[in-house]
Amino acid sequence: LTKYRSRLQIIAEILEIVRDGAKKTHIMYKANLSYKLLCRYLDECLGCGFVKPDKAGYTVAPKGERFLRSFYAYVKRRDRANKELELMNEEKALLEKMYTSPSRGGKV
Amino acid sequence: LTKYRSRLQIIAEILEIVRDGAKKTHIMYKANLSYKLLCRYLDECLGCGFVKPDKAGYTVAPKGERFLRSFYAYVKRRDRANKELELMNEEKALLEKMYTSPSRGGKV
Repeated sequence: LTKYRSRLQIIAEILEIVRDGAKKTHIMYKANLSYKLLCRYLDECLGCGFVKPDKAGYTVAPKGERFLRSFYAYVKRRDRANKELELMNEEKALLEKMYTSPSRGGKV
Repeated sequence: LTKYRSRLQIIAEILEIVRDGAKKTHIMYKANLSYKLLCRYLDECLGCGFVKPDKAGYTVAPKGERFLRSFYAYVKRRDRANKELELMNEEKALLEKMYTSPSRGGKV
């Protein structure tokens, strides 16, 4: 993907990585983040209770699991909505075409 | 409505007005268009076969009826999609809130 990841997307990726426990460097490489950015996200994830420290480094907390479920539901919904918007634009283009194409009767 | 009407919306309004036959001035007042704009739309509607002349002035042609049906289906779809987008934005705001609100454990 060449598209920039959204903040929520990055958080979801971090949570997936720490699901089975992960150290800071492991998260950093897997999530493809700079050390500075990782530290910021990780601090925030700890602060809001998405992630908790464990013996292996960090792991996902129940609130993080809830976030992941809600996030995936949201992504599914968003993808469906984007597809719907595409179809709608096609429908609109057809309406415009109806209006701009000359009458087949050719009487005008 | 204070919102500007779209071109397709104006065309649909004109077609509704001429459904039972209507003269130019009648269409102009009912559709709330300047004479100049009405003439342009009416010419285009005649040219593409949405409207045909009749003894009462103008009336809707079969292609115009087809346009109206497709247009209303499109509007319904668009309204549903806009509602869906609103709900999605609320869902996204909830996800953001989950992330920014501090952990209830308060251990960090």
